[in-house]
Amino acid sequence: MTESADNRHLAACIDHTLLRADAQTADIQRLCQEAADFGFAAVCVNPSYAALAVSLLCNCPVRVAAVANFPLGASTDAALVAETCALINAGVDEIDMVMNIAAAKDGNWQAVDQGIQAVVGQAQPAGLIVKLIIETCLLSEAEKVRACAAALAANVDFVKTSTGFSTSGATLADVCLLRRSVGQDIGVKASGGIRTREDALAMLAAGANRLGTSFGVAIIGQGQQHPAS
Amino acid sequence: MTESADNRHLAACIDHTLLRADAQTADIQRLCQEAADFGFAAVCVNPSYAALAVSLLCNCPVRVAAVANFPLGASTDAALVAETCALINAGVDEIDMVMNIAAAKDGNWQAVDQGIQAVVGQAQPAGLIVKLIIETCLLSEAEKVRACAAALAANVDFVKTSTGFSTSGATLADVCLLRRSVGQDIGVKASGGIRTREDALAMLAAGANRLGTSFGVAIIGQGQQHPAS
Repeated sequence: MTESADNRHLAACIDHTLLRADAQTADIQRLCQEAADFGFAAVCVNPSYAALAVSLLCNCPVRVAAVANFPLGASTDAALVAETCALINAGVDEIDMVMNIAAAKDGNWQAVDQGIQAVVGQAQPAGLIVKLIIETCLLSEAEKVRACAAALAANVDFVKTSTGFSTSGATLADVCLLRRSVGQDIGVKASGGIRTREDALAMLAAGANRLGTSFGVAIIGQGQQHPAS
Repeated sequence: MTESADNRHLAACIDHTLLRADAQTADIQRLCQEAADFGFAAVCVNPSYAALAVSLLCNCPVRVAAVANFPLGASTDAALVAETCALINAGVDEIDMVMNIAAAKDGNWQAVDQGIQAVVGQAQPAGLIVKLIIETCLLSEAEKVRACAAALAANVDFVKTSTGFSTSGATLADVCLLRRSVGQDIGVKASGGIRTREDALAMLAAGANRLGTSFGVAIIGQGQQHPAS
């Protein structure tokens, strides 16, 4: 591939992400404009900005992803159902939900499954993609593998490593483990701590096919002088 | 006051807090037992553990507080309404909700007020106390004062400094500012970074009347040899 084609391929794997509590409207506007300019896969925003992002990107192939049960994975299922419904109504394309981490640590996988179902049961019939954030840094290897089995059983579209708000982000070892665990049937999104083009390419080589990062512009900028647009 | 009476008064100001994403059932059981043993005001837990904490403390004066819109303050109002309803049904006594921080930074106080009303409108008629977490570390001084005005206008029961998950926790200056801004009509809860008895007493002297901390046992232990029970 040419350098430009390489860059387009890399950009098309990136969820351009802004989840800071104090992100303002102008920041979301910039995020959406950059995502359009660089051809990123999606923007990833908090639920309160979902409708704004959808309105800004309505004439553009960039998808809108919103997080749910984020970042602690500790809401009630009732709140998760309501959040999912609100995000569907807002018009998002993808929901990145955090698994009930505490229940997973307790070995209560029935509760984990119920939480996933609260989202998937509504989101997938509405045509949305669901990514399951398992927060790898808080799980043992066995729990990571079990979480991947839960993801497969619930038919989610991606398993995702990290919220970016816990003790650490994606590692190459975890991305390899997740890809090995879910096979080729669903996606693997690496997220948290991906700051350079080298990080990004290594995650893709390890088996990820989507990358969550706030450094997309810098990552693509390292491979070109001007946006692909 | 005697040392023991001092300790009882201090313990009765403490919300014994455990909000880690990976807190397990056994951790919540320990938290509730300690709260009962030491005579803390409340336990403060994530929504997914609200029902468990209520069941563990049903024969005990310790109150149960659950967080909502936590810690980013970025859920949809629909999710907030559902979370509040679920927490009322679970039997909690208090809801510690995070203000829509992004809206506050945007100067969109109408959206901030709507989010508060989504909780207060249901919780207070059901007899619950509502605390409004304004995340002082992300706000300018003018925004902190404006947030206190929003708290007063919405008739919440406490204004609370911090989630403990952002860039810093409570400061003495912020506690003074909050107390000055809300007067004596509502409470001030200092939270985030309170680790020692000295921290705790300084926050009370600055105007707080509730303290959120995960270090309650150590704080009370520094003033006595055995729990008050």
